[in-house]
Amino acid sequence: LAEISKMAADDYVGFTFFVGSMAMMAASAFFFLSMNDFDRKWKTSILVSGLITFIAAVHYFYMRGYWESFGESPTFFRYVDWVLTVPLMCVEFFLILRAAGAKRSLMWRLIILSVIMLVTGYLGEAVFRDQAWLWGLISGIAYFIIVYDIWLGKAKQLATSAGGNVLKAHKTLCWFVLVGWAIYPLGYMAGTPGWYDGLFDGLSMDVIYNIGDAINKIGFGLVVYNLAVSSSGSKK
Amino acid sequence: LAEISKMAADDYVGFTFFVGSMAMMAASAFFFLSMNDFDRKWKTSILVSGLITFIAAVHYFYMRGYWESFGESPTFFRYVDWVLTVPLMCVEFFLILRAAGAKRSLMWRLIILSVIMLVTGYLGEAVFRDQAWLWGLISGIAYFIIVYDIWLGKAKQLATSAGGNVLKAHKTLCWFVLVGWAIYPLGYMAGTPGWYDGLFDGLSMDVIYNIGDAINKIGFGLVVYNLAVSSSGSKK
Ligand SMILES: CC1=C(/C=C/C(C)=C/C=C/C(C)=C/C=O)C(C)(C)CCC1
Ligand SMILES: CC1=C(/C=C/C(C)=C/C=C/C(C)=C/C=O)C(C)(C)CCC1
Repeated sequence: LAEISKMAADDYVGFTFFVGSMAMMAASAFFFLSMNDFDRKWKTSILVSGLITFIAAVHYFYMRGYWESFGESPTFFRYVDWVLTVPLMCVEFFLILRAAGAKRSLMWRLIILSVIMLVTGYLGEAVFRDQAWLWGLISGIAYFIIVYDIWLGKAKQLATSAGGNVLKAHKTLCWFVLVGWAIYPLGYMAGTPGWYDGLFDGLSMDVIYNIGDAINKIGFGLVVYNLAVSSSGSKK
Repeated sequence: LAEISKMAADDYVGFTFFVGSMAMMAASAFFFLSMNDFDRKWKTSILVSGLITFIAAVHYFYMRGYWESFGESPTFFRYVDWVLTVPLMCVEFFLILRAAGAKRSLMWRLIILSVIMLVTGYLGEAVFRDQAWLWGLISGIAYFIIVYDIWLGKAKQLATSAGGNVLKAHKTLCWFVLVGWAIYPLGYMAGTPGWYDGLFDGLSMDVIYNIGDAINKIGFGLVVYNLAVSSSGSKK
């Protein structure tokens, strides 16, 4: 366990790091302990949900320690986390649509786009902060292509042809990507200098990112879990 | 595990932190290791009971370390713990009543009320201590709406229509919320300044909170466990 230090009562960033780390841990326990109730098809998807929250739990422990020790944004660990978990979310889209005939090329396309989105975001946030707006823009374009692909492109067609619970779950996940993921660019603008200075004054980048992560990682996993419940029927 | 330090023989707060942390750990082991004896419906409820005590176990380890190191109330960690575990208790109400037709809106309503209760409580206890009575009052109103909802509102109707073991378990949980949860406002008054000064002299806020947690978290889980035993019939 981490060392214990005093936390200021109004350290809201620290508060959300702590809540986040435990929520991710509890969510991982939930996914790992319940995945065996389902047939293999759904089991794999729930296992991946659990990996996403588990990876996040470990990074949240680092990040909260970093925050306690240095009082600075743990940007480095943040992106280490995202670069693993966001591609895994793309894998989830693929796993859900696999029965409807999704090809791996769809998965790789989403993975590559998400890596471009994150690498350019990291460059803007941590390396070339003076051009943060430019890197954010490139990152945002990759983000919009992902949104397009799943809302209107190939993934959408496959979901429609699958119909039923799969279509419903796909739609919910699409909303997560459109609305839930849009939380992150807000955090980015709150935390980097640019023409948008002043728009997000008083909002903390880390609080925004932490809220986004809780919604997206755990929420995403629960959608997949519900899909498994509603369409597999328990093995037992 | 934390380092070992000497404990004063009359450190009753420390004593209850230690007892609490082990009790939560043992309860988690009990719930996690026994959940597989039940069908999925009840298994999920028992899993959530285990998550509640597990989250608490981790925070009790922090809190006892904090108490040992600084001799101060670990208010920060206390609320990190509550803000995760109390909403999970609201989920339990929903899970139990789901078969009787409970909607998610019922669950979200209880969750939101509980978060309001806790956020305002935190503000009074940790941030605006001079107005502790006011924040406590707002928190108390949210608490009473929860009590009303489950005793007389929609949740009650659903429990009645479910009847049998579910109704019995629901009633017991209602008593937990009415009597068991009422322990917390007492702790709050013992630990904050206000017109109630002197009423609770000599009582320690942390001892009261620790007793409340042991009763509510473990007791709540055991009620759910009993419901599973009495109404599912074991798989074996
Ligand atoms: C568009 C955009 C961004 C998008 C980030 C996103 C969408 C992150 C998603 C993270 C998730 C979903 C994590 C959960 O596991 C950045 C990089 C902030 C840079 C600014 C522009
Ligand atoms: C009404 C009220 C409070 C209620 C707290 C409660 C009801 C906490 C319940 C915690 C539980 C059940 C934890 C177990 O997991 C506060 C915040 C002390 C502030 C004063 C007014």
